[in-house]
Amino acid sequence: MKKTRYKVTVAYDGTHFSGYQVQPNARTVQGELEKALIKIAKGENIRVHGAGRTDAGVHARGQVIHFDLPFYIHPKGLLTGLNTSTPEDVTIVDVEEAEADFHARYLAKGKMYTYRVDNSRFADPFKRLYAYHHRYPMERKRVEKALKHMEGTHDFTSFASTHSDKEDKVRTIYQARVSVDEETNEWLFTFVGNGFLYNMIRILMGTLLEVADGRREADDIPSIIEAKDRESAGLTLSPVGLCMEKVYYEGQEMPGTLKEDHHD
Amino acid sequence: MKKTRYKVTVAYDGTHFSGYQVQPNARTVQGELEKALIKIAKGENIRVHGAGRTDAGVHARGQVIHFDLPFYIHPKGLLTGLNTSTPEDVTIVDVEEAEADFHARYLAKGKMYTYRVDNSRFADPFKRLYAYHHRYPMERKRVEKALKHMEGTHDFTSFASTHSDKEDKVRTIYQARVSVDEETNEWLFTFVGNGFLYNMIRILMGTLLEVADGRREADDIPSIIEAKDRESAGLTLSPVGLCMEKVYYEGQEMPGTLKEDHHD
Repeated sequence: MKKTRYKVTVAYDGTHFSGYQVQPNARTVQGELEKALIKIAKGENIRVHGAGRTDAGVHARGQVIHFDLPFYIHPKGLLTGLNTSTPEDVTIVDVEEAEADFHARYLAKGKMYTYRVDNSRFADPFKRLYAYHHRYPMERKRVEKALKHMEGTHDFTSFASTHSDKEDKVRTIYQARVSVDEETNEWLFTFVGNGFLYNMIRILMGTLLEVADGRREADDIPSIIEAKDRESAGLTLSPVGLCMEKVYYEGQEMPGTLKEDHHD
Repeated sequence: MKKTRYKVTVAYDGTHFSGYQVQPNARTVQGELEKALIKIAKGENIRVHGAGRTDAGVHARGQVIHFDLPFYIHPKGLLTGLNTSTPEDVTIVDVEEAEADFHARYLAKGKMYTYRVDNSRFADPFKRLYAYHHRYPMERKRVEKALKHMEGTHDFTSFASTHSDKEDKVRTIYQARVSVDEETNEWLFTFVGNGFLYNMIRILMGTLLEVADGRREADDIPSIIEAKDRESAGLTLSPVGLCMEKVYYEGQEMPGTLKEDHHD
């Protein structure tokens, strides 16, 4: 039988998960996926590798994983089979057969995350699981100025959890944007970058909300970055509004980056 | 102190409620509202009257309630006070001082309900609490024809739970519509009527989905109504997609009805 590698896109509601990565005595996304795969692989344990380890409470619409099956099964059949076995807060969005050396994490060239803020005076009960409620008036121009300062290649030490185990804290944010729905008071922040440190977006967001409602100035961002000190940035915002939207691989265009060369 | 009657609009996520109405040993919306009011009324029990008793799992964006306080408090203060005391799946949307004889249920001249269907092949995990997942292809023209048959004044015995305690089962549906978001595969059904029997919209919806995917014909609706027999209609659909959107009172325009006379 032919060993086959699959690249699979997964969406999940992070509310009832202790994060993506397997840990003892906790309900995790990886754990649920591996449980579903045992059935498909007829009792064999299949190890799953994810592009990113989302924290407890963080959502995903486009987490990418890879794994090997000891046999070939058509991607369409695997898509249906997995969706039959996963719980209702996990949905398999797409299944592709991948090259034998495809790796969901090592080959990712970038990721897109969104962060949703409900800026209504009183929290919308239907958004409470998928958006962070911030009741204070927010000023869009201030936020946009701060986002511009965040774009580019920087040492993001000030915006990384002190528990981050990465030595090199230089990352590039290709695009940091916000769109506002005036009718529903929902603010949707989008971050595209080549990689994000532990808690980085949640700390960027904590800092952005302080800029938004006037507790901090947009032009303070460069000196916060410069300080390379976690204490200089804002609070780590709740995971509730955070969602891993997309993982980019070779050949896929990323917002905010130049198109790859192509010859007509 | 002046006894004051208030008209209050409430939104709630019905997921974790055993319905609107108070019952022993169950978490209910009315129960949570009365608990919040005890604090505001300094220990006095305040009875709350709702426009409609939504079932377990049914949501609301515009439930209307009334109650009397033994004193006057400014509506804005009451709005903030209530929102401070209610749990996060209940939000007070609006507070008005009402006439002493205002009654949320008896004076309601109509209601608008919506029902959401997620027609994706695999359920969207972010919609699972607020939409019913139906994976079979649905045909919009068939649905629209069936909805037309439902509009008007009919004896809706076929579409009422056999547990309905109402003698008179004649109701008027002023408007029954559907809108479809092709991108997200979400179907939003809207029903405006002068009143709805127990489970009526959920049975209408169960029947509509059978029409939508071809198990029944749109032109069967008149004979189902004619039969006055619960057995002739479709299944009672899950409460998950149902939401009480609005309650209409004297002086408010209702979609599908003629404007009230007014003289220039």
